[in-house]
Amino acid sequence: MIRIESIRVRTIPLQADYRNATVSFAGMTGSVVAILARGDDGSVEVGYGFGSIGRYAQTEMIRERFGPRLLRVDPSAYNRGGLPDPLLLNRLMRRDEKQGGHGERSVAIGAIDMAAWDLYAKLERKPLFLCLAERFNGGRSDSSVEVYAAGGYYYDEGGQARLRRELEGYPERGFRSVKIKIGGASLKEDLQRIETAIATVGSPSDVAVDANGRFRVEEALEWGKAMEDLNLRWYEEPVDPLDFEAYKQLGSAYGPPLATGENLFSLQEANNLIRYAGLRPDRDILQMDPGLAYGVSEYLDIIHALESAGWSRRSCFPHGGNLFNLHVAQGLQIGGTEVYPEVFAPLGGFGESVEIEKGRASAPEVPGIGWETKPDLMDCFKERLKAQRHKGTKDSKG
Amino acid sequence: MIRIESIRVRTIPLQADYRNATVSFAGMTGSVVAILARGDDGSVEVGYGFGSIGRYAQTEMIRERFGPRLLRVDPSAYNRGGLPDPLLLNRLMRRDEKQGGHGERSVAIGAIDMAAWDLYAKLERKPLFLCLAERFNGGRSDSSVEVYAAGGYYYDEGGQARLRRELEGYPERGFRSVKIKIGGASLKEDLQRIETAIATVGSPSDVAVDANGRFRVEEALEWGKAMEDLNLRWYEEPVDPLDFEAYKQLGSAYGPPLATGENLFSLQEANNLIRYAGLRPDRDILQMDPGLAYGVSEYLDIIHALESAGWSRRSCFPHGGNLFNLHVAQGLQIGGTEVYPEVFAPLGGFGESVEIEKGRASAPEVPGIGWETKPDLMDCFKERLKAQRHKGTKDSKG
Repeated sequence: MIRIESIRVRTIPLQADYRNATVSFAGMTGSVVAILARGDDGSVEVGYGFGSIGRYAQTEMIRERFGPRLLRVDPSAYNRGGLPDPLLLNRLMRRDEKQGGHGERSVAIGAIDMAAWDLYAKLERKPLFLCLAERFNGGRSDSSVEVYAAGGYYYDEGGQARLRRELEGYPERGFRSVKIKIGGASLKEDLQRIETAIATVGSPSDVAVDANGRFRVEEALEWGKAMEDLNLRWYEEPVDPLDFEAYKQLGSAYGPPLATGENLFSLQEANNLIRYAGLRPDRDILQMDPGLAYGVSEYLDIIHALESAGWSRRSCFPHGGNLFNLHVAQGLQIGGTEVYPEVFAPLGGFGESVEIEKGRASAPEVPGIGWETKPDLMDCFKERLKAQRHKGTKDSKG
Repeated sequence: MIRIESIRVRTIPLQADYRNATVSFAGMTGSVVAILARGDDGSVEVGYGFGSIGRYAQTEMIRERFGPRLLRVDPSAYNRGGLPDPLLLNRLMRRDEKQGGHGERSVAIGAIDMAAWDLYAKLERKPLFLCLAERFNGGRSDSSVEVYAAGGYYYDEGGQARLRRELEGYPERGFRSVKIKIGGASLKEDLQRIETAIATVGSPSDVAVDANGRFRVEEALEWGKAMEDLNLRWYEEPVDPLDFEAYKQLGSAYGPPLATGENLFSLQEANNLIRYAGLRPDRDILQMDPGLAYGVSEYLDIIHALESAGWSRRSCFPHGGNLFNLHVAQGLQIGGTEVYPEVFAPLGGFGESVEIEKGRASAPEVPGIGWETKPDLMDCFKERLKAQRHKGTKDSKG
């Protein structure tokens, strides 16, 4: 039996001086989390996780609400096969939570869930993707995962030249495809940005564009019409993520792939997307992010719901751009995942030890998620989650 | 010009030893908020608000995210007609927030919005309902509001006798109709609880039942079939609030009114409910709660969307059971509102000075929301939000 002895959490600023079409990331924060567990023999293991990329720190919820729920129960409530089982932990955290309202708390629970899986895989002495493959995917996993470089944000200075310089770096680092932001400028300027991207990576089918839900449906259709003949890789979040009627209109007007889902945080919302948005299983892309949406448990439910509705899990490319999602993609054999090579440090990116080759990457073959192979993030975890003078330790007694 | 000088916030425990079909409220918390504003002449006014009833404290978000956004801007960004305008404040708080994920932050913004309206109406020297009527309703307001007593929770002890004793108290206090919980017991026991309620208040049309989203659709239909001939006032949240397909099934199988909406927190979700859930404008009840759902601004958008879709605003009975919603109901002439005569103290309830007569109530005719007429809550605001030793004051400088 292994007991969760403390859950530590701290808010950190994200390094971000850029914006997409709807928000500036200058004040963006995240929460880093450590779960410290002790076995009957006194041995200690620590799992690390974080939230959020793009949805702010959730430190209070982790410290006051979800952490204490786990620390209050007897370890027998979450041990299975001698290990703290993240699925059981997830269920315990969601006790006494009303339905609906799937935002923010889904990030808090997602962060603890991430740390719980890191802990679990470390205790299993296996990389996380293998644990996921064995438990949930009949032992099958991919040897590598399709990834793309998410960047091309709007910066206050530099314009097209800066964009070109940024995008040129990605093929040099092994990426084949990229995603850039649109909707934060005029249609004319956005089309120039897209031209720059195509010229840099070589093919429109390797360029995706992301409007971050900024457009009204008329604008979305206007941009769509202007871009349609380019046959871009995908056109992401043209409109509000919950405006399923607008997606339906777009899907009947715009032929190439659409993508959405990063701002849906629950099985219920994913179901509604599939039911109402008129998305096309033969081409469209679904980007629900397990790290922001209650963790692996909910993501498994979502994948199964998609498959029941006639979708392939290969249509899933989670938002998030981090090592955790790389494991999820590899172990559950979904389509691929995003990477943030240059943004949202230190949470984003895979770290130097993960090589991108021909647009594919493999999760580190070390026990756990492998945060230890990404020193900037590991240093951040260690420094911010030291035991001393830390409120989280209070929770461990209560 | 009036400057917001500080925003103070504290977490409080709610007094709650009961449960509904899905959650226990024993660990429920809320956030109390004060906005302190100073005029050019040095005069100071304070507005108070709170979140949440049923969705936990959101102190971190108020202190670290939404409060600072207001304190950072120049007062000219939110003054209109010489007063801090809650609509402008609301928009400022929502800067740099991604779309979707409408939960928790909607409570944090709702709490500040409530305090901003208290402040605004105090500065106008009018009760809030009059301010709302004048700004948004052509000066029209109702002289009183239809209310009902929300209670009938499950307690560990006391059973039917306790329920009867509780319900008997409501008519004595002027209520005509009541709402009790179902779904936390067997169908047989729930039917007995309903019989008890009908026997106590006299008519099934004065008894509503609330399953708090606990049922799978098959169970919801089973309970519905067993209750249908009773013609109860309404059957609330039989299933998950986002499972619109299930509501559609229920609406075609169950004749009497259905009610839902308290766990939808945004215009987008309200739109989807209206579009997809097959609800019936001639009888069904919508319970979106402005206090939990980004405040008055979003609620106005929701009312207008409902009216565009052929609904009457008289179909709206917000969840929440507090003085703020009483003003909203009276000033915007919606259907009515819930009251918590016995639960969620000190946030719930209208206070002794609001008399319930023949099932109707009127908001206190004092400037603001009138928290000052509800001493238990006012004492809580004053005691918890004192200036000294308080982190919130730090924000006022940053």
